Amino acid sequence: MSDTLLLILDLAGIAVFASTGALVGVRKELDVFGVAVLAMITGLGGGVLRDLLIGAVPPAALEDWRYLVVPFLTSLVVFAFHPTFGRREREIMLLDALGLSLFCVTGAAIAEEAGLNVLSASALGMLTGIGGGMMRDVASGRVPVVFRGELYATPAFAGALIASVVHHQDWSQWWYVLAGAVCLVWRVVALQRGWSAPLPPGTTHV
Amino acid sequence: MSDTLLLILDLAGIAVFASTGALVGVRKELDVFGVAVLAMITGLGGGVLRDLLIGAVPPAALEDWRYLVVPFLTSLVVFAFHPTFGRREREIMLLDALGLSLFCVTGAAIAEEAGLNVLSASALGMLTGIGGGMMRDVASGRVPVVFRGELYATPAFAGALIASVVHHQDWSQWWYVLAGAVCLVWRVVALQRGWSAPLPPGTTHV
Amino acid sequence: MSDTLLLILDLAGIAVFASTGALVGVRKELDVFGVAVLAMITGLGGGVLRDLLIGAVPPAALEDWRYLVVPFLTSLVVFAFHPTFGRREREIMLLDALGLSLFCVTGAAIAEEAGLNVLSASALGMLTGIGGGMMRDVASGRVPVVFRGELYATPAFAGALIASVVHHQDWSQWWYVLAGAVCLVWRVVALQRGWSAPLPPGTTHV
Repeated sequence: MSDTLLLILDLAGIAVFASTGALVGVRKELDVFGVAVLAMITGLGGGVLRDLLIGAVPPAALEDWRYLVVPFLTSLVVFAFHPTFGRREREIMLLDALGLSLFCVTGAAIAEEAGLNVLSASALGMLTGIGGGMMRDVASGRVPVVFRGELYATPAFAGALIASVVHHQDWSQWWYVLAGAVCLVWRVVALQRGWSAPLPPGTTHV
Repeated sequence: MSDTLLLILDLAGIAVFASTGALVGVRKELDVFGVAVLAMITGLGGGVLRDLLIGAVPPAALEDWRYLVVPFLTSLVVFAFHPTFGRREREIMLLDALGLSLFCVTGAAIAEEAGLNVLSASALGMLTGIGGGMMRDVASGRVPVVFRGELYATPAFAGALIASVVHHQDWSQWWYVLAGAVCLVWRVVALQRGWSAPLPPGTTHV
Repeated sequence: MSDTLLLILDLAGIAVFASTGALVGVRKELDVFGVAVLAMITGLGGGVLRDLLIGAVPPAALEDWRYLVVPFLTSLVVFAFHPTFGRREREIMLLDALGLSLFCVTGAAIAEEAGLNVLSASALGMLTGIGGGMMRDVASGRVPVVFRGELYATPAFAGALIASVVHHQDWSQWWYVLAGAVCLVWRVVALQRGWSAPLPPGTTHV
């Protein structure tokens, strides 16, 4: 993957995650700056956590000004036109699934590059994908969506695992597309069919 | 700024932030050790986060024992005399604004020193100022004050931005005083006049 | 202490902490993957935080695959047989106290090894012991147990302080057993007698 393409995809993923953070902020009736801070935490949190854990400091989000400007501008647009975005939640969920797919793959590849074993790189790739949303939910006082009855972390782990193996075996980079597709399709089908992972024995699905 | 003066100002800011953490703990009826832990998280959280993000490990708070002793003793004093502190909330808000001003300026300068660009250094300066309070609120189950309708993060960003430019342009250190004053005055006037940043279109101020 | 023994004790402590995280997840009716993520955060959070703060990256939990597999398998077992574990909460509290004792001692020794002063190493040892549980509670929307009226952080700090002094003075490693025993006995007696640290003046014990 060329560096330019990777940067564009990365910024697109950040923008999508940031818009979900901004929507949560708008619904909590935060002011414009609270919305911006929550959007930036959501868009950048997963990648910053990954960079901290592999010792890549300062994290990419602080090295390149575009990583700060993109989620900030996104939050302003969502803030100004939130009724439009609010009505398109379905489309945002699909874009969020795309962001998740992208981040779990790039996160796993970057972790592999840093010398982690396949299992750790998969875990870190998953964390890159789900970390920003977890921070968004904890900071705004919601139970993290990753803990609720929706398949979210499992597809991210699956995509990250494939990407880690691809990197470890030095296979063609085209296989990364497969890794992302597995995560994306799994997540989207789960969303549309209302799939969820098994609940504890004795608990009934709501 | 001489190192001794900087250390004294830093410890004063930590003590003030710690006292706000201790007051929240007392109101939640935590025991003395819970109050101490919450006070230390509040006083040291922003600076530790900043140090982690620029790779300055172990963070200053763990290198110098005074950084641990000051917020601990502060928490004990607040714990013992909390009715007195509780009545002086107005004064504590002013001191908190002073701590915010100090941390956003020193945080931005330290981030610039570590080689970040002006925008990233401003963001990190702001994070140094607001980080401890965010951790305090998340850990004690409150919506972070920075997300509520009070101008808090904006003055911190403004002060950090000026400080970053001052450091970047290598201007006289006296300009740092201006950076801090902008943050302080903005915050204090916003508090006194009940200013708040714009809410989402369609939301009414409470 | 031999490295093998240390690894076994470390993994045992992780498994115990992970089981407390899994039980919280089961009670919140999370699905199997949510339970696993919460269990891993609880088991590994304290050690990862310690490693980040002393700059030991990637943290041990990402260097050795066993650190990921142990809490994951633990969470599956608790998930499948949660009524059994739920009934044995008393035993789990005792095991949790054992995990706390172990982590505060190893955390302090590792921090000393990294060159921290005695006070900082004690604080970091305590944080290693209480960090995972704090993350578990914050992520699942509970007030952290360390803030409630139970002696939890104090015994951890005491054990870590003794361990730091032992390491600093280069005393026989047998003294580490004493450090752990102090934390363990203190915590267990506090649990059984319902001890708690002093509440703020004017507050009545519930």
